[in-house]
Amino acid sequence: MTTVAAYAAPAAKAPLERTTIERREVREHDVLIDIKFAGICHSDIHQAREGWGEAIFPMVPGHEIAGVVSEVGPGVTRFAVGDRVGVGCMVDSCRECEYCKAGLEQYCVEGNTGTYNAVGRDGEVTYGGYAQKVVVDENFVLGIPEGISLDEAAPLLCAGITTYSPLRRWNAGPGKKVAVVGLGGLGHMAVKLAHALGAEVTVLSQSLRKKDDGLKLGADHYYATSDPATFQELAGSFDLIVSTVSAPLDFAAYLGLLRPHGTLANVGAPEEPISLNLFALLGGGKGLAGSMIGGIAETQEMLDFCAEHGIGAEIELIAASEVNEAYERVLASDVRYRFVIDTATI
Amino acid sequence: MTTVAAYAAPAAKAPLERTTIERREVREHDVLIDIKFAGICHSDIHQAREGWGEAIFPMVPGHEIAGVVSEVGPGVTRFAVGDRVGVGCMVDSCRECEYCKAGLEQYCVEGNTGTYNAVGRDGEVTYGGYAQKVVVDENFVLGIPEGISLDEAAPLLCAGITTYSPLRRWNAGPGKKVAVVGLGGLGHMAVKLAHALGAEVTVLSQSLRKKDDGLKLGADHYYATSDPATFQELAGSFDLIVSTVSAPLDFAAYLGLLRPHGTLANVGAPEEPISLNLFALLGGGKGLAGSMIGGIAETQEMLDFCAEHGIGAEIELIAASEVNEAYERVLASDVRYRFVIDTATI
Repeated sequence: MTTVAAYAAPAAKAPLERTTIERREVREHDVLIDIKFAGICHSDIHQAREGWGEAIFPMVPGHEIAGVVSEVGPGVTRFAVGDRVGVGCMVDSCRECEYCKAGLEQYCVEGNTGTYNAVGRDGEVTYGGYAQKVVVDENFVLGIPEGISLDEAAPLLCAGITTYSPLRRWNAGPGKKVAVVGLGGLGHMAVKLAHALGAEVTVLSQSLRKKDDGLKLGADHYYATSDPATFQELAGSFDLIVSTVSAPLDFAAYLGLLRPHGTLANVGAPEEPISLNLFALLGGGKGLAGSMIGGIAETQEMLDFCAEHGIGAEIELIAASEVNEAYERVLASDVRYRFVIDTATI
Repeated sequence: MTTVAAYAAPAAKAPLERTTIERREVREHDVLIDIKFAGICHSDIHQAREGWGEAIFPMVPGHEIAGVVSEVGPGVTRFAVGDRVGVGCMVDSCRECEYCKAGLEQYCVEGNTGTYNAVGRDGEVTYGGYAQKVVVDENFVLGIPEGISLDEAAPLLCAGITTYSPLRRWNAGPGKKVAVVGLGGLGHMAVKLAHALGAEVTVLSQSLRKKDDGLKLGADHYYATSDPATFQELAGSFDLIVSTVSAPLDFAAYLGLLRPHGTLANVGAPEEPISLNLFALLGGGKGLAGSMIGGIAETQEMLDFCAEHGIGAEIELIAASEVNEAYERVLASDVRYRFVIDTATI
């Protein structure tokens, strides 16, 4: 066991504070990672405050981890000491079900093992990336290519793959019109990725406050959803809408913006049920879908794609002591566009 | 103009009664059809009773039409006198938008022209198939292949294509597990078609009352949704669920029956909005979709497929005078499985 410094929530809704946790000894197929940077995802806050149900405390959040390998187990073949690596939302799965074998470990029939707020297959509680080190099985470690700095790479491990996966699944690319709802941590990645994939990209944001940013990030168009004219002007326009917001939308209105056979893919997660008139799906043969992160192979594909296209997250680098303030700013949508903790400050 | 006998609803919620209507003269590209049989679709009742909003009266319902060509306009190339033909839910569309050109006339940007309860592009109200004759542009007339009797073919023009289209779009076929919710007019066609396409078919019905029928129609399995154990036993089972019911389901429960990346396709249309927790879509990357009939080319493909596989609808043939009683029995789910009016009795 190795004692490492970390930031943890001691109880639901309590402020995070500096503490120490134990990391397991490096096993046969394990990689010990010196964490350099950890992104702050909105879901860290949902979980630390039990917005998604009962959670395990103390909790060390963080599933957007970038660092450097400092030790490998004797059976490790994919990584070596000194490699630049990342860890996302999962650190294990059953590895034997058809979904695991198909590279959809996130949908493992036994459930994947979350990077934090979970109990691993060894019975131990998992702790996330707001810490100085982590030990992870090599099969759940990603390589971060040269060409993406580690701080800008960290958010790709969740915000990047969460948006890349639906864009790929529903064929965002040349000739396709893609709308991104919300220009936050997820949304700004969706814009960058959809643009790099060759799609015509429209941001649908509550106001035009971030319009200049949106266009710089790669959007071709930018509309305010607070203006009812937006919904008239853009009716029947999009092949794909990726909604990144966790506020409950007027889904019928957004479905009206899709072309026939279009899909509205949700990666945000409203805590309350939504109300929907199914006629909004019938006329046009449209779909309302969900998407949850992505598999390990697809996450590596995304990282390689980002390196090839010079894509990293837009970040505000903070010290660990600023994490509670950062949480409040995330809730107020006051971040451009992802907070990343410099773990050297823990 | 030709005067023809018909059954019409004189006003919303009023019983249908015998009347006469005028059919237009046969134009350049028109086909005059001697209607032999007209199916009764649940949506006839929705419209005749204004369940889906304001309607046009008097209304001659009927969009499951089978008959024989008795006259053709001089420009007609696709049909000749004596041909066995059908007409479904549409009799026109703009024919120029990208969806019309792509064979998705049902999603025409200007809206397709309904076979009844609509105003045609010539400004005239359309009247449906509960009548002895109808005049339709040849581009919206389907050929009914030898090998399907006209009475069993009539319901294919709506119930057949409505279920065939989502089965094809979401790849029902060998190795795929398909569930059909509801064993009524649409559901029994979904079972026959999914079975003929090679899928493993499960019926999810409120009770086991029609189990023997379901298995004879081609279902491999039959479960009662009134039994909570059904939802446990079948969790994560299906690639595709086609819901044919217009009652509002517990959609989260049905989504739980899908495999990851599965789709729940609705062809039924609840009049009231549904409530849905989006987590039911996120976990598993699932989709809730709508589907509305099918295009003209796909409808012909479906008829050819049915002829090849010896598929017709299971029908109860009735006299036109029985139509009001038949409506009540449809509402009570007391029909096996589609009423068809013998139009010789009008």
